[in-house]
Amino acid sequence: MTSDTFDPDVFLQLGRDVLQRQPFSVLLGAELTHLMPGDVELQLPLRDDLKQQDGFAHGGVVSYLADNALTFAGGTAMRVPVVTSEFKINYLKPAMGERLVVRAKAVGVGRSQTVCRCDVFSVLGHEETLCAVAQGTISKRGDAPPA
Amino acid sequence: MTSDTFDPDVFLQLGRDVLQRQPFSVLLGAELTHLMPGDVELQLPLRDDLKQQDGFAHGGVVSYLADNALTFAGGTAMRVPVVTSEFKINYLKPAMGERLVVRAKAVGVGRSQTVCRCDVFSVLGHEETLCAVAQGTISKRGDAPPA
Amino acid sequence: MTSDTFDPDVFLQLGRDVLQRQPFSVLLGAELTHLMPGDVELQLPLRDDLKQQDGFAHGGVVSYLADNALTFAGGTAMRVPVVTSEFKINYLKPAMGERLVVRAKAVGVGRSQTVCRCDVFSVLGHEETLCAVAQGTISKRGDAPPA
Amino acid sequence: MTSDTFDPDVFLQLGRDVLQRQPFSVLLGAELTHLMPGDVELQLPLRDDLKQQDGFAHGGVVSYLADNALTFAGGTAMRVPVVTSEFKINYLKPAMGERLVVRAKAVGVGRSQTVCRCDVFSVLGHEETLCAVAQGTISKRGDAPPA
Repeated sequence: MTSDTFDPDVFLQLGRDVLQRQPFSVLLGAELTHLMPGDVELQLPLRDDLKQQDGFAHGGVVSYLADNALTFAGGTAMRVPVVTSEFKINYLKPAMGERLVVRAKAVGVGRSQTVCRCDVFSVLGHEETLCAVAQGTISKRGDAPPA
Repeated sequence: MTSDTFDPDVFLQLGRDVLQRQPFSVLLGAELTHLMPGDVELQLPLRDDLKQQDGFAHGGVVSYLADNALTFAGGTAMRVPVVTSEFKINYLKPAMGERLVVRAKAVGVGRSQTVCRCDVFSVLGHEETLCAVAQGTISKRGDAPPA
Repeated sequence: MTSDTFDPDVFLQLGRDVLQRQPFSVLLGAELTHLMPGDVELQLPLRDDLKQQDGFAHGGVVSYLADNALTFAGGTAMRVPVVTSEFKINYLKPAMGERLVVRAKAVGVGRSQTVCRCDVFSVLGHEETLCAVAQGTISKRGDAPPA
Repeated sequence: MTSDTFDPDVFLQLGRDVLQRQPFSVLLGAELTHLMPGDVELQLPLRDDLKQQDGFAHGGVVSYLADNALTFAGGTAMRVPVVTSEFKINYLKPAMGERLVVRAKAVGVGRSQTVCRCDVFSVLGHEETLCAVAQGTISKRGDAPPA
């Protein structure tokens, strides 16, 4: 795909195809709702089986969303096959509501690594509440072990 | 439970009860295989629907295991209701094999916060391969937002 | 200081007084150039003795700036004595130029913990280059060990 | 240096030479007290000008030690020129006493990246107190931006 033929709809569809080839993302029900190079939004309707014992989304669901969003942001920023090298997440508030939304952006794009940040929001009706923030490194495959 | 009545089997069973009340842990199939104060082991048989597009466990599965193990380690070290404040994970190798095992320990126990570390291993037969390491903070509930 | 008497100049001066009482900040030569609740900027002229063997600012200088900026942002957001519980930093580019600038903001303010993010820039003339990003937790003193 | 000529004393001296070429490490007074591939110990006598306003070592001093120890551990594990890509540190207790000691080990050695962990201790007389733990990624130079 060269820059003169860049088609945002095709790009988003390619991303959705990747997401659908991740059985775990299908199990959880994640949806790719925005994708541009280094800029991604994923959504996840909050089902009961994604929760912990207090009725909030399990921390592992929130970290899954962060991990996946960072990886899509880094991969589309570098346009090469990538793996997630590492990330760090801070939980701010209980993740709840009808769905979770995560928005990730590449903040430092390198030749073999890209550093990305993301924000995870609880969504209820039209209201979004920031519930977690994360930051991590996405590496070109071959330069780091796959994850 | 006072120290003179500490019963390891009862303690483990109490932990298993907590895990069973987490619908997301039930969905993934996590098992609590060791639990002492500040010292925990969880296992997860690797089903196909826990994988990503290359046939390895999804990073979100590995981060779920790390998150949960850190939280059990911190919660049992402090013996109070807790939430995960934050953690950081480095992926070292593809997570694969028959099952994943995570072992977490409390390394710094405070009044309101405990810092824990964990190692995640891929298990195939009798062979364990270190595939991720994590470190995070578990906070007494009320001192931090629930996650 | 009640909200009706909030004076930005007094607030900045109070922050500068704190910085001057940190011998290590004096040794390095850090300057507080902006301070509002949860919003801070520190600058550091790059002397030769702050560098590593390749002529760039030592990573420890960059992490000092991140640590301090996150702490000022968290402390002024909560308006209580605080300690830094933890942070994570990604180095993006060599830190060089005439000075470093770090800008931190509180992104999740809680009763006993505040999560902050910061960006560190190399400055040469009027040009700023993002060289590191960090994210961390600032805790109310007493709720976490001092650091 | 080939494996059949490996001389621990020469190896340590080479490490000390690198440390002495870091002006910031000289300013702080860091000493390399142990060095083997992927296994390092640094010490830092605690001078007053390394402290913050409460008389403890400044968090930036502790993070400098962690950063440098992780880098030496990663660099000697891979035996190539390296840069620190990222690290995360949790402060457990105030860093004080006569000196600080940091011990780092490589826990996952890859072709282009090595993940390391370290523990920072306060030392008073013969007593060591764990005051911080860190984990980070060291990258082969050229695969990541220098830091």
